[in-house]
Amino acid sequence: MSADTPESDTRLNEEKAREQLIELAAEFYDQFDHGDIPEMTLPTRTKSNIVFDEEAGVWVYGDRTSTRSANSVRGARKLLKAVYAVEFLAQQLDENRSSTLRELYYLSESWDSEEAQFNTQDESNQLIEDLEIVSGVTREDFHMRPEESGAKVMGPLKIREQTRRGDRDIHCQEDVGQGGYQIPNNPDTIEFLDNDAEFVLCVETGGMRDRLVENGFDVDYDSIVVHLGGQPARATRRLTKRLHDELDLPVVVFCDGDPWSYRIFGSVAYGSIKSAHLSEYLATPEAKYVGIRPQDIVDYDLPTDPLSDSDVNALESELEDPRFQTDFWEEQIELQLDIEKKAEQQALAAQGLDFVTDTYLPERLEDMGIV
Amino acid sequence: MSADTPESDTRLNEEKAREQLIELAAEFYDQFDHGDIPEMTLPTRTKSNIVFDEEAGVWVYGDRTSTRSANSVRGARKLLKAVYAVEFLAQQLDENRSSTLRELYYLSESWDSEEAQFNTQDESNQLIEDLEIVSGVTREDFHMRPEESGAKVMGPLKIREQTRRGDRDIHCQEDVGQGGYQIPNNPDTIEFLDNDAEFVLCVETGGMRDRLVENGFDVDYDSIVVHLGGQPARATRRLTKRLHDELDLPVVVFCDGDPWSYRIFGSVAYGSIKSAHLSEYLATPEAKYVGIRPQDIVDYDLPTDPLSDSDVNALESELEDPRFQTDFWEEQIELQLDIEKKAEQQALAAQGLDFVTDTYLPERLEDMGIV
Repeated sequence: MSADTPESDTRLNEEKAREQLIELAAEFYDQFDHGDIPEMTLPTRTKSNIVFDEEAGVWVYGDRTSTRSANSVRGARKLLKAVYAVEFLAQQLDENRSSTLRELYYLSESWDSEEAQFNTQDESNQLIEDLEIVSGVTREDFHMRPEESGAKVMGPLKIREQTRRGDRDIHCQEDVGQGGYQIPNNPDTIEFLDNDAEFVLCVETGGMRDRLVENGFDVDYDSIVVHLGGQPARATRRLTKRLHDELDLPVVVFCDGDPWSYRIFGSVAYGSIKSAHLSEYLATPEAKYVGIRPQDIVDYDLPTDPLSDSDVNALESELEDPRFQTDFWEEQIELQLDIEKKAEQQALAAQGLDFVTDTYLPERLEDMGIV
Repeated sequence: MSADTPESDTRLNEEKAREQLIELAAEFYDQFDHGDIPEMTLPTRTKSNIVFDEEAGVWVYGDRTSTRSANSVRGARKLLKAVYAVEFLAQQLDENRSSTLRELYYLSESWDSEEAQFNTQDESNQLIEDLEIVSGVTREDFHMRPEESGAKVMGPLKIREQTRRGDRDIHCQEDVGQGGYQIPNNPDTIEFLDNDAEFVLCVETGGMRDRLVENGFDVDYDSIVVHLGGQPARATRRLTKRLHDELDLPVVVFCDGDPWSYRIFGSVAYGSIKSAHLSEYLATPEAKYVGIRPQDIVDYDLPTDPLSDSDVNALESELEDPRFQTDFWEEQIELQLDIEKKAEQQALAAQGLDFVTDTYLPERLEDMGIV
């Protein structure tokens, strides 16, 4: 999607989504018509089948595939559910409605074939992911809203959001309260009108986000502060990617110094195994990790907590994770396993409330060539 | 706080907070001066010491008290920490700064007496609650920000928020995106300018909040939709109470049909044991529970999950909870224990995506005399 024509592009994506769904149904029809047993082929979705796409710079599925076939009762039931879901989604797009994954799960109770009803929400979630993969569009294009809403933005950026109630022009400093601009479920309804930003700073915790805003970091450093709020919602990752790609802004990620936070960075930068089919849509491979780094724990003598057993396991599993196989991460993770400590972002307060904005971030960002 | 003078009242509260803190320090000084061992007396904070305040209509602490005295090393250390915290808070108010509970915990590392440093964050959190109780003001008045930010608002309401960057006038339908208006950490910075609302509808889940907004429920029913986002932050509860008290709007709460959701309602309506000293500031005792009710599970044949052991325990403990000792709740909880089922808000989608806004809520709200 380009920066200046989101409306027409949103419509294009929806039209493509609808066509892809109908095409999938038509394939089943043709298979029946030719006397073949209907089937659907998908990439195998395990860690061993993600590979690095050099061109896109993100992790994507490899060549291994699995086939869902109607040659068993179980397989036939799966395809029946897919057909019911396709019918519902095509109708939803026709009517310009939307729904959540959970609503889809419950809606299946009203479908006339009991065989087509989902047994668990895992089953309906998985089916929507399958449909994303075979159709090559995202579930947002099917008008499936996520449960978790996006986080919030504060910075020198003016946007236009298309809402069901008309367009809204919002400057993400001047037209919002201290809480900032709330990212909508589908950030492709946002058009970037104008900005004076130098870079995007994604922040894990609400406490640190509020510290940066109170200290005026977004104003002083022309920074768009994006609150991740823990593991970021798809909407937050998508918006971050668009800020990078369309406005040509560097993206840096500021998290706690523990293995779970490195995974948060990993999902922003490289995507996740679960959504590897969406990496090109959601991941920002150029994103850089600001901190907290294990080296910071040593250099700044930060207050720490000891690593738990599950922290150690998570760090060890990150050493095996293709997303973390760089010199930087290997060095930092080995160091952390060695010192056996972790530290939170807010531990920087041990050196005073302004240390993070007066010293830590400016020095680090200068080292990284961002400011 | 009255609707039309939030600015001066916010300043008054801060001035009062500062005075109360200094007074507490002065008391310790006087105790020393008279050759007494310094001490601080607080209400006992357990479930058996909350009583119903008939006048205010909320649960508050009873008459039992405990005393923190410097007559032991442990007690003396506690009071030392209190004095350091009082000094920090008074300085923070002087400089018009703010901080989070977690920052306070880390800041103590920079205090010059090692004896005054907090061992755990529980300890510093508890101390701030103690200071709220003895000073009679809220931690927001000390400029202690919560970690969790408030949720979001959509409805026919125009507000003015005082921010560090100047006042912002925002209409919570016309000037916001689909995500709505983000409640700031301290909602007492909000002034209500104008509204066309008939009632306030607090909604537990994001999925249901988005459904109501997509279906235009806030427009069709002149309703201010407040997203609770699970257990609501203090800011969300405070704003809800102010909407009720200052704009004279009825408040209804719409949650999942399980014991954890009844507790969410309980904390909106009656406050919590942990924050019983703040009930008059945070609780809206006139709030009514819309649903999901166990009776709805039966009447609408909703898709359900079986009660887990912890659900059953929670329901049984609610039967003993003074906040739930009404005919309505006893009947509903007994029914739920009997049918052994729970249901989510979004389970209403089993009757179609519009059932909740076309049928369920209008009928229920009419029964309750709200619409």
